Amino acid sequence: MNESTICKSFEALRETTPLVTNITNYVVTNSTANALLSIGASPIMTHAVEEVEELMAFSGALVINLGTVARTYAEAMPVAWAAANRNNVPVVLDPVGAGATKLRTELPAGMLAEYKPAIIRGNASEIMTLAGEAGCAKGVDSTQGAEAAEDAAKALAKLHGCAVVVSGEVDLVTDGERVARIRGGSDMMPLVTGLGCTCSAICGAFAAVCDTPFEAGVAGMTVMAVCGKRAADAAKGPGTLQLNLYDELYTLTPERLAADMDVSFE
Amino acid sequence: MNESTICKSFEALRETTPLVTNITNYVVTNSTANALLSIGASPIMTHAVEEVEELMAFSGALVINLGTVARTYAEAMPVAWAAANRNNVPVVLDPVGAGATKLRTELPAGMLAEYKPAIIRGNASEIMTLAGEAGCAKGVDSTQGAEAAEDAAKALAKLHGCAVVVSGEVDLVTDGERVARIRGGSDMMPLVTGLGCTCSAICGAFAAVCDTPFEAGVAGMTVMAVCGKRAADAAKGPGTLQLNLYDELYTLTPERLAADMDVSFE
Amino acid sequence: MNESTICKSFEALRETTPLVTNITNYVVTNSTANALLSIGASPIMTHAVEEVEELMAFSGALVINLGTVARTYAEAMPVAWAAANRNNVPVVLDPVGAGATKLRTELPAGMLAEYKPAIIRGNASEIMTLAGEAGCAKGVDSTQGAEAAEDAAKALAKLHGCAVVVSGEVDLVTDGERVARIRGGSDMMPLVTGLGCTCSAICGAFAAVCDTPFEAGVAGMTVMAVCGKRAADAAKGPGTLQLNLYDELYTLTPERLAADMDVSFE
Repeated sequence: MNESTICKSFEALRETTPLVTNITNYVVTNSTANALLSIGASPIMTHAVEEVEELMAFSGALVINLGTVARTYAEAMPVAWAAANRNNVPVVLDPVGAGATKLRTELPAGMLAEYKPAIIRGNASEIMTLAGEAGCAKGVDSTQGAEAAEDAAKALAKLHGCAVVVSGEVDLVTDGERVARIRGGSDMMPLVTGLGCTCSAICGAFAAVCDTPFEAGVAGMTVMAVCGKRAADAAKGPGTLQLNLYDELYTLTPERLAADMDVSFE
Repeated sequence: MNESTICKSFEALRETTPLVTNITNYVVTNSTANALLSIGASPIMTHAVEEVEELMAFSGALVINLGTVARTYAEAMPVAWAAANRNNVPVVLDPVGAGATKLRTELPAGMLAEYKPAIIRGNASEIMTLAGEAGCAKGVDSTQGAEAAEDAAKALAKLHGCAVVVSGEVDLVTDGERVARIRGGSDMMPLVTGLGCTCSAICGAFAAVCDTPFEAGVAGMTVMAVCGKRAADAAKGPGTLQLNLYDELYTLTPERLAADMDVSFE
Repeated sequence: MNESTICKSFEALRETTPLVTNITNYVVTNSTANALLSIGASPIMTHAVEEVEELMAFSGALVINLGTVARTYAEAMPVAWAAANRNNVPVVLDPVGAGATKLRTELPAGMLAEYKPAIIRGNASEIMTLAGEAGCAKGVDSTQGAEAAEDAAKALAKLHGCAVVVSGEVDLVTDGERVARIRGGSDMMPLVTGLGCTCSAICGAFAAVCDTPFEAGVAGMTVMAVCGKRAADAAKGPGTLQLNLYDELYTLTPERLAADMDVSFE
């Protein structure tokens, strides 16, 4: 893949308005749904165990986010994931806080042993934890950048036959062989809650339209890097940044994406 | 009713600050509460089965929104609705995603067979589904405008002795006999998650002060059309639109409402 | 304590980025997390009973907010609070709607009989209710100012050996002996949902770095009064106010805090 693949994926997303089903945490349901709508996808937010199987019959992607791990949320996840695998619906896993508590470490590990992800997206600490390394969590945040998790990300990608996305100052995407590095965004972005979760959801929207999980991960993170940078450059603080981000996702064009992206492939 | 009825209803809302109890989805609790506060109502958001009966003793209206249909949310709904009917508290039902999944179709149908609504508000697909017609859902969205659901809306209104509100480019409100059509808003509004839910909540606030559900539905949708249009006209994208909407609801005056509304009655 | 203590506490908060665990309501998870991030704390939002004990081993403070009192939320609260007491983690209790319903009155009273709070923060009606007086609730709001609850606040503080914060036009903080009064904010702030909850969370962040709960309560409410006033002065309505508040919390400096604060001690 190259830079023009990203723009074509973005055009495909805009043209098809893919349905993205999200089992996500109660902190970010609103902001994630708004980001998906702004970029051009059609979000469904649910954790009703009774309907998640049915939704997999017509969803373009499933995003499973472990930000809220209370039982009523967690019970729908394996049911949905199993149905997604049966229906060839790509699944994005966001293991929020893996390494921070026992529950947040064991829940994603247990599901990964059973079901197949298309993309795993986390910060360095979360990815290192899932790869069996010692993480570097401070609560749900990471104390190290994405580069610290490069080996862990490659190993995890090979193990699960998926793409792994590590968020950081420079984002890293790998399928175990190829590596893409994405620059952009802003160091103010971690001060808006759930922008990592938003990255996972946007990767889910691209997974519905891209040929491979690697392409979807690269396209999703590039869009967020481009729009996040513009949103932050015009912001007085995290409040304005969040507002601007929706507007940037909405007004993004293939031309602006091509002009602003900073991606390198290895 | 006529246009001046709408302005009088708005003045009554501002003067009385009605309590509106909302059993709503976890995507829009924050944005719905903020919209109710901005227009001048006093919101309570709950799904605690232990307290919903008690709340019906002093609530001005109850809004039941099926955006989150997980068991812990759904179990409080019939308990609250039954208590509302006993206490003559008007109930607004928002059947989010009726037609999209079996659960979302059967849950509102089951409650409508038992309890009496004052207002049912949905998009065309949801209203058609509840009226027993084939819907036109794409996920939780509708692929057709409100006019496609006019016959369904009238039939549903007659069947339940309530008002039915169908959101769309032109909103439609009917009590089975009368029809009001409301123009305004913006095609950017569907890109802010939960503005349909906000419409239902605002209709709930008006149901607490209006003489009839039909008047409440017309007044609520007119306020949203007027404020939504102004919010969108000054917006760069969905982020700014949502922000502006709260400010517009807050700064709305009876004079501006009278000057900007575009409503026709049949 | 005096005014310079407040500035030193704020500098300590910025330097240490304390972890604040929040069991809070589903209306304000997003806005509370954003406020904590903006002021410089590191929030965790959870109600998973399986992990709250573990989190108390490394949290700087625990905030228990009763805005959502559904069973799945309420069951984690006593477990977390007990663990916090064992680990000397300060606990902030926000008894949302105490006095409004039986459940909202009995739940905090029951926990206060078992566990020790560092700070109780509520509006006048909530504090009066917890002190055994007749409250003045309209739904989850209070019909009286903080001064009406001064005796109740002192009695409650003495009974539980904690600080009590009463929000109002003039905020009141007491440890049963000392009283601080804090001016600022705006009468538009109650029109943004959950700013009281945000006050409680910010007090939690200060409880993690201050020597006493009284100092933490005063520092937290002073920061909110200063930033809230600036946010409201530049706002067209509640939408802009909320946005501005995050930006103000983020851009706050010790110098601005010192210049703008209006606190008196008795």
